[in-house]
Amino acid sequence: VKETARSTQIVQAAAELWAVKGYHGAGVEELSQLVGLQRGALYHYIGSKEELLQEVVRRAIQRLLDRTAPDESQPAEAQLRAISRILMTDIFEHQAEWTVFFREIDCLTGSRRDEIFQLRDRYEQLWIRSIERAAIRDELRPVADVLLKGVLGMHNYAYLWLRPDGSLAPTEIADLFMDALWNGMGGKATLDE
Amino acid sequence: VKETARSTQIVQAAAELWAVKGYHGAGVEELSQLVGLQRGALYHYIGSKEELLQEVVRRAIQRLLDRTAPDESQPAEAQLRAISRILMTDIFEHQAEWTVFFREIDCLTGSRRDEIFQLRDRYEQLWIRSIERAAIRDELRPVADVLLKGVLGMHNYAYLWLRPDGSLAPTEIADLFMDALWNGMGGKATLDE
Repeated sequence: VKETARSTQIVQAAAELWAVKGYHGAGVEELSQLVGLQRGALYHYIGSKEELLQEVVRRAIQRLLDRTAPDESQPAEAQLRAISRILMTDIFEHQAEWTVFFREIDCLTGSRRDEIFQLRDRYEQLWIRSIERAAIRDELRPVADVLLKGVLGMHNYAYLWLRPDGSLAPTEIADLFMDALWNGMGGKATLDE
Repeated sequence: VKETARSTQIVQAAAELWAVKGYHGAGVEELSQLVGLQRGALYHYIGSKEELLQEVVRRAIQRLLDRTAPDESQPAEAQLRAISRILMTDIFEHQAEWTVFFREIDCLTGSRRDEIFQLRDRYEQLWIRSIERAAIRDELRPVADVLLKGVLGMHNYAYLWLRPDGSLAPTEIADLFMDALWNGMGGKATLDE
């Protein structure tokens, strides 16, 4: 799917539609009405329904990769807090895309699926490398792989509960999370320092 | 759906099938072959496809509620660690059900949906009450609502990456998570105590 104003409009409409109705719950017919294109013209832009799904989730993860550039000159805590803020902000700003990403990604098959999982792994590597560099510089204990999965889950799951009119900005939510992870959940040991 | 050996077999088969193929990706016909019942006989047990979906996710959240009984005589840390272990163990033991729960819950409509969301809210209240009691006893700082969402996400997201042959037991993973949340992610301040 080539990146044009028209294709971006279609990809966004598909994300909104599938976030509400599910990928299998809404077809190309409904989408063609939403974007004001005949079915045949729509297929000209999207190739196939599955190709469009791949495009929705590919744009989400690619944008997140582009935005996430850890500044290695920073201390580990600043680096990780910055990555956390970028992730939460992106989920907040593109909640429909991320809903489709997390809920419908298994609808992709074959090489389409592989490509997205590779991008997702590349994103996880950004966290892993920041944490590893921090451990080498003795700013952080080495972090178990499953703990990183937990940290990502803590953020990713927000696609379910973030509200556009919530009282906290996404960056404030990210800070709350990193506060909890960095200095503990407020257990006495931490408070007594 | 009455709870009999037969209905339990059907509910489990549906969970396994939908965890792999998605709720919209696999129909009653495929399920009837899996459980060795004619379509008509199957409908006798399940009522409708959506009723069966509700049954899959209802059993999951109801079992978790039944298992999670915080012991109020315990210190907050022990209580929360116990709840965390129970949640991670349940996701581990019933990964197919929880995959359907987190991914397909939006396919439920009307009162079916409301009932499940009420059970999920009741479950979240178990965490909230444990944390609130702990804050009253000064064992924990008050925890922001969104942080609790983060803690739950940290656990829930495990339906995506827990492996039956993983090197860590689910209770060990839960302990790692609570270690990180309780005492911080290993930042210098904590290590220097």
